[in-house]
Amino acid sequence: MRMYDIIEKKRDGFELDSEEIRYFITEYCSGNIPDYQAAALLMAIFLRGMNERETADLTTIMAHSGDMVDLSEIPGIKADKHSTGGVGDKTTLILAPIVAACGIPVAKMSGRGLGHTGGTIDKLEAIPGFNTAISREVFIKNVKETGISIAGQTGNLAPADKKIYALRDVTATVNNISLIASSIMSKKLASGADRIVLDVKTGSGAFMKSLEDSVKLAREMVKIGENTGRRTVAVVTDMDIPLGYAVGNSLEIIEAIEALKNKGPRDLMEVSFELAARLLEICELGTLDECKQMVREAVESGRAILKLEELIERQGGNKRVINDYSLFPQAAYKYDYISQYDGYIASMKTDTIGVASLELGAGRETKESSIDYAAGILFRKKTGDHVEKGDIIASLYTNKQEKISPACALLDKAIHFCESKPEIKPLILAYIDNK
Amino acid sequence: MRMYDIIEKKRDGFELDSEEIRYFITEYCSGNIPDYQAAALLMAIFLRGMNERETADLTTIMAHSGDMVDLSEIPGIKADKHSTGGVGDKTTLILAPIVAACGIPVAKMSGRGLGHTGGTIDKLEAIPGFNTAISREVFIKNVKETGISIAGQTGNLAPADKKIYALRDVTATVNNISLIASSIMSKKLASGADRIVLDVKTGSGAFMKSLEDSVKLAREMVKIGENTGRRTVAVVTDMDIPLGYAVGNSLEIIEAIEALKNKGPRDLMEVSFELAARLLEICELGTLDECKQMVREAVESGRAILKLEELIERQGGNKRVINDYSLFPQAAYKYDYISQYDGYIASMKTDTIGVASLELGAGRETKESSIDYAAGILFRKKTGDHVEKGDIIASLYTNKQEKISPACALLDKAIHFCESKPEIKPLILAYIDNK
Repeated sequence: MRMYDIIEKKRDGFELDSEEIRYFITEYCSGNIPDYQAAALLMAIFLRGMNERETADLTTIMAHSGDMVDLSEIPGIKADKHSTGGVGDKTTLILAPIVAACGIPVAKMSGRGLGHTGGTIDKLEAIPGFNTAISREVFIKNVKETGISIAGQTGNLAPADKKIYALRDVTATVNNISLIASSIMSKKLASGADRIVLDVKTGSGAFMKSLEDSVKLAREMVKIGENTGRRTVAVVTDMDIPLGYAVGNSLEIIEAIEALKNKGPRDLMEVSFELAARLLEICELGTLDECKQMVREAVESGRAILKLEELIERQGGNKRVINDYSLFPQAAYKYDYISQYDGYIASMKTDTIGVASLELGAGRETKESSIDYAAGILFRKKTGDHVEKGDIIASLYTNKQEKISPACALLDKAIHFCESKPEIKPLILAYIDNK
Repeated sequence: MRMYDIIEKKRDGFELDSEEIRYFITEYCSGNIPDYQAAALLMAIFLRGMNERETADLTTIMAHSGDMVDLSEIPGIKADKHSTGGVGDKTTLILAPIVAACGIPVAKMSGRGLGHTGGTIDKLEAIPGFNTAISREVFIKNVKETGISIAGQTGNLAPADKKIYALRDVTATVNNISLIASSIMSKKLASGADRIVLDVKTGSGAFMKSLEDSVKLAREMVKIGENTGRRTVAVVTDMDIPLGYAVGNSLEIIEAIEALKNKGPRDLMEVSFELAARLLEICELGTLDECKQMVREAVESGRAILKLEELIERQGGNKRVINDYSLFPQAAYKYDYISQYDGYIASMKTDTIGVASLELGAGRETKESSIDYAAGILFRKKTGDHVEKGDIIASLYTNKQEKISPACALLDKAIHFCESKPEIKPLILAYIDNK
C-alpha cells in the first residue's frame, strides 16, 4: 500500500477502505508518512468528504491508536457526557453528581481548556487541594465505591487524533464536520463509557455558529457512536448568550454548587437537567419524564450535592468550599461594569465575552499559559433583561488591574441594547437520536 | 499575510490575488513556509482550480524566481518551441535549423530527459564532441553570428517550479491542467524568447492521453503566453504511434538529419514542418501558406542541413556525422524483432514502446542514471502497415544483451495486429491560437 495512491483515490472522490484508513493513521503516527502527504490527504478529505463508514473507521482507528480505558471492573452501564464548549458552560459539574446520585456510574476523563476559561479539569482544580492527576487504580476504585470520579486525560488517549489535529490546525483543515466529529468521538470511544450524551452548542459563543451546522455535527457524532457500538444521543443547545451568569473557574464552580443546591440560574439548570435526564434515559432508567423527575429529586433531596462533596473529598479537595465560597481563590481587583443606557439588553456577542474573560486571566492563550482561578466575569444582567443607566451589568474579577480596561472595551463591543424587550430564543434547540 | 489564510481562501473556492500567490512562492522558496502547508494549498488548488489570472500570475512569479535569460542583445524576434514529450519526438532537431535558416534566431534552452529516451540536450550529446554546457556569452554570440544555439538549462531556471514540482510529485497534485501549464510556461518565460510554438502531444505515448485534456492544456498554455506578453500558439499532434521510425538518441539524430535532407519519414516531416511554419507565421514572415513554402525551400535548398552543420561545428561537435552515420556510437548488439502474424499492425501502445527503449538503455530511470546513446529501437513497420510472418518489425540496439528479451516481451504487449487495413488518424489534431 502506498500513501500516494490513497491521496489520489480520495482526491478523485472515491471511498477509502478500512485498510487504507488504518495504513494512513498507523504509518503517520509511526513517522513513516511525512506531514506533507498527510496534509494533502486531509485537504482532499476536507473537500471531497467522507461517508458514514469512512468516518466511523477513522474514529475507531484513532481511538485505538493509544490506551483504551477499560471500565469493565465497574459493574453496570457507564455514562459519559461531552460538550463542544461554550462560554459559562459548567454543565458537567452539575450533571455528573446528579447522574451518579441516580445510580449510574460516572467515570469521566476530561480535558484542559484552551481559550476563554479552563476546561472541567481546570475548574475542578480551582477547589483547594483537588487532585485530577489520579492513577487509573484510584480512578476505578472511586467510581466503584462512590459512583463518580473525574480525572485528567492521560497523554496517551487517542494520540493519533492529537497528532492529526495539530496538523489540521496549521493547514486550514479543522472545520470539516466529519473530521471534527471523528476527533471528538475518538477520545470518547477511548474513554470507555457505554452511553454518551453530547451537548452540541450553537451560536456566537460556540465553535459552530449556525444551527444547521450544529445539527449536522450532532448527527455525525451520533452516527459514529451508533456505528461503533456506543449508544449516543445529542442535544443542541443555545450558546448565543453565556450559560448562567458566571464565566471563570472559581465563579463557575460556585454557580454549579448553587445549581446543585437547587438555587442556580434557570437557564443553566434547564440545560444541565435536560442533559442529565437524556443520559439517564439512554441508561434505561425509565421514560424521559421519569428521568426528569429522578433528576429533580436527586437535586431537591440533596443527594446530588452530597455526591459532589464525596467527589471533592475523595480527590483530596476541601469539601468545605460547598458552604464557604470564601475558601476559593479571591481576586485582588473587582470592577463593576455599569450600564450607560436605559432599555433592554438586545444581544451579547458571546465569543467576545469569552475573550474578555481570557483577558482577565481566566483562560489560557497557549498551552503553556497558567490560569488565574479567581479571574472572570459575574453577570448581573443578560440578554432580555431591563437595565437602567448606572445599573451594574457585570462584575469583573482579576489579579491584573491593567486588564480591566481592555476587558471593559470588549464588553462594550459585545453587549447591544434596544428599547423594547427582545424575544428570547429557546435553550434546547434540537434532540438527535438515531434510534 | 499568513499562509494559513491563503490556504483557507483557496479551500473555500475564492480567487487568490497576485500578492497572495507571490507570498506563497517567495516564502516557500525561502524555506519560510513548511512543505505541509504548501501541500495543503496545492491540493486545494488541484480541487478548486485557478482562473486565467491566477494561473498567469503563478507562472510569471515562478519564472522570476530565478534567472531570466536576457536575449535583447540578439536583434529581431527570438523564437522558441516546446513539446510536452513523446516517443520518437525529435522535431526540435529538425525545426530549429529550418527556422534559423529562414532568418529567425533560435536561442534554445533545453532540458534533459527522464524516461524512455533523453531530451534534446541528451540527443545532441550523442554527436561526438557536441558541448551543450556552453557559457551564456558563447550562447548569445553563436545566435548572433549563426542564428542558432541550443544549450542545457542552467540550474537556476525557474527554481520555484522545480521545488513545487518535487512536492506535487509526492502529493498526487501533478495532474492538474493549470499547474502543468504554469510549470511548463514558467520555464519558457524565463528562457527569454518572444514567440513560442507548443507541440502538445496526445495519445498512448503522451502525458495527456485524451484529446480533450490535450486541447485543454494547449488552450491553458496559449492563454498564459498571451497573458504574459509572449505570442504563443499550440499544435495538438498525435502520439498514439511513435513519431518517425527511430526511438533512441543516436538513432533519432540520424533520422532528423535524414529529414533535413528531405529524406525523412513522412509523419515526422509533416509534424516538424507544420510546427516550423506555425512558428514562422507568428514571427510574421508571411501567411501560413507562404511560411510552409519557406520551410520546404529551406530544406530542399540544403540551407537547413547546413544550419545544423554550423550548429554542430560551433558547439564542438564532429560535423562529419551528417554524412557518415558510422561516426555515432555503435551498439554491441542488434536484434531483429520478427512478426509472428500475417496481417496489419492495428495499434502500438506507445508508452510501452517507450519502456522497451528505456530497458535497452536509451533513457534514464532516475536523474542519476546514464544514457546509452547507441541504444534504441528502429522500426521497419508501424500502425497501418501490412506485415507477413517473418518480416522484421523493428531492430533493437543495445549494449546490454540481457535486456533484449524483456524489451521484446514489452513489444509483444505493445503491438496489436488485425486482418484488414486499419484507419489511420490524422497527425495534426488541433491548432490553438487566441488571436
